[in-house]
Amino acid sequence: MSEEFGRFQDFREKMDKKILESGNKEIRRFLALDKNAYKEGTLSAETKELLGLVASLVLRCNDCVTYHLFRCISLGLKNEQLYEAFNVALLVGGSIVIPHLRKAFAMLDEIRESINQ
Amino acid sequence: MSEEFGRFQDFREKMDKKILESGNKEIRRFLALDKNAYKEGTLSAETKELLGLVASLVLRCNDCVTYHLFRCISLGLKNEQLYEAFNVALLVGGSIVIPHLRKAFAMLDEIRESINQ
Amino acid sequence: MSEEFGRFQDFREKMDKKILESGNKEIRRFLALDKNAYKEGTLSAETKELLGLVASLVLRCNDCVTYHLFRCISLGLKNEQLYEAFNVALLVGGSIVIPHLRKAFAMLDEIRESINQ
Amino acid sequence: MSEEFGRFQDFREKMDKKILESGNKEIRRFLALDKNAYKEGTLSAETKELLGLVASLVLRCNDCVTYHLFRCISLGLKNEQLYEAFNVALLVGGSIVIPHLRKAFAMLDEIRESINQ
Amino acid sequence: MSEEFGRFQDFREKMDKKILESGNKEIRRFLALDKNAYKEGTLSAETKELLGLVASLVLRCNDCVTYHLFRCISLGLKNEQLYEAFNVALLVGGSIVIPHLRKAFAMLDEIRESINQ
Amino acid sequence: MSEEFGRFQDFREKMDKKILESGNKEIRRFLALDKNAYKEGTLSAETKELLGLVASLVLRCNDCVTYHLFRCISLGLKNEQLYEAFNVALLVGGSIVIPHLRKAFAMLDEIRESINQ
Repeated sequence: MSEEFGRFQDFREKMDKKILESGNKEIRRFLALDKNAYKEGTLSAETKELLGLVASLVLRCNDCVTYHLFRCISLGLKNEQLYEAFNVALLVGGSIVIPHLRKAFAMLDEIRESINQ
Repeated sequence: MSEEFGRFQDFREKMDKKILESGNKEIRRFLALDKNAYKEGTLSAETKELLGLVASLVLRCNDCVTYHLFRCISLGLKNEQLYEAFNVALLVGGSIVIPHLRKAFAMLDEIRESINQ
Repeated sequence: MSEEFGRFQDFREKMDKKILESGNKEIRRFLALDKNAYKEGTLSAETKELLGLVASLVLRCNDCVTYHLFRCISLGLKNEQLYEAFNVALLVGGSIVIPHLRKAFAMLDEIRESINQ
Repeated sequence: MSEEFGRFQDFREKMDKKILESGNKEIRRFLALDKNAYKEGTLSAETKELLGLVASLVLRCNDCVTYHLFRCISLGLKNEQLYEAFNVALLVGGSIVIPHLRKAFAMLDEIRESINQ
Repeated sequence: MSEEFGRFQDFREKMDKKILESGNKEIRRFLALDKNAYKEGTLSAETKELLGLVASLVLRCNDCVTYHLFRCISLGLKNEQLYEAFNVALLVGGSIVIPHLRKAFAMLDEIRESINQ
Repeated sequence: MSEEFGRFQDFREKMDKKILESGNKEIRRFLALDKNAYKEGTLSAETKELLGLVASLVLRCNDCVTYHLFRCISLGLKNEQLYEAFNVALLVGGSIVIPHLRKAFAMLDEIRESINQ
């Protein structure tokens, strides 16, 4: 699985380009608004990425979890902090979240390696 | 609507008592575990309550939103911080979250009043 | 709240009549198919109603929970059995299910009274 | 229930004003973007409102269903057309949608009356 | 990825055959009812497929999105029309829909090629 | 696809070990509580696994469906019984469940083979 994060990022980048080039202005505006939501404000960028991570876990979207994990790790959050966020998501969302937690744990090391290269 | 938060708290308290007295030990353990998830740890209690708030908004549960709003406000979070958390939930969860956002705004003042009494 | 179950049943009956009289044959067929799914088969009617109850709890629909609780109780299921089904729903669906569990506990006594009359 | 649609509209209007006055620019932008999505384009406004209606039904949000029903009726859609959209939502979303269908049927007449006044 | 749509169709066809041959009459009836829901009626087949597409996007089911995209394209809908439906789904369902939108954009060309052969 | 169930079990086992070794006690407690929920009690283990299966189907989690299918088959449940549980899930959850039903049918034979070896 060691190249899974790389493939995820390539597909994400390629398709976002395709979406932006499709010419639909409203979708483009949504994507811009979405990016803005995680910028440092009265809440820190770290807190906001954790909010995005937990929201993605309880809504059970692997790709969204991977993306926010990447952002959280890039911002310097430690594994112990991420585990506590995982636990909140697990309690709120229930055992149906577990397969996504397994995936998140599998991606953690891979993302850290990818960032440290 | 000025007594809605009071009615919510009364019903919540009464039913939690009933659930705990029903004698099912596993449900009781789940409720204890759930309480634990929001205690100060490597993440602050404030951050964890914000995680609970956003998870509740994207899963669209008014009662859960009201409860976490109450906890967030009790811990001293400001409206501007809550609005930024609302915005993350709105972006992740979409316009289907808006009716719950309206409800959250309606409860905000009521909860602040209730706490300041 | 002692008349809530009665109001629920009245509204349910009145609207189902209205839906059936609307003249859309496909919706009518869906409703017939839905009723069939809970009939005694290779699985007992009790088991099927418990399946409906847990599915309704994890999908967090109060009306559906109330209806399947009514059916479960009519078929003779005991509270201890219902609590174990509640617990499975709570574990699978997470703490977001708790407000619906509170509601279910509130309806339990009312439904038993209504049936015993 | 004859005044329920009126109360819904009053609460909606009052809270949207409150949300817009809260000063969070990103939430405001989201609400503007949301409004835009239903404007006549390469798809007709009628089709777009039907899309909003069915999306609201399968995501099971009564307030959203009521709003899109109001918009559909305002644009001249007939009950028979709405029933066919209901049926698609019922098939895609399953019996868990039925309580929201009951609510939609209950609102239909009320909304038509409110518009014809 | 150029053979993904073919693999999807093969698996779909093979498993639907297996399901129909399993002998459960009620599942068979559900599948027949489901097919009926998208037939030309007081709403056009195009509109109904768009309803199915948006419902599938907000419920975040890649296979369902692929299927309704195939049907929409077969019925002659243009990319610009599909993008507007995508935008409604994105607004209603939020950024959690984005990974499914990426997938939908990736399938669009592949489905058009497959149909034109 | 004949080795898919084996790969699923390997990944599941490997990641559960990793999660348990991560040192977060609350996640560990949740996993223990989750296991307990399916033990023989006032409801039979078979009934509880069927509850887990239907809950997983309506929440549309392939991994959870595969796991509960494995448990149901290990406890001796017959295909005809599983099909009736599938039908309840299909009715409650709607056609959006169909792709997960296809997957479940594909896993059925594979799991039976794996158990009989």
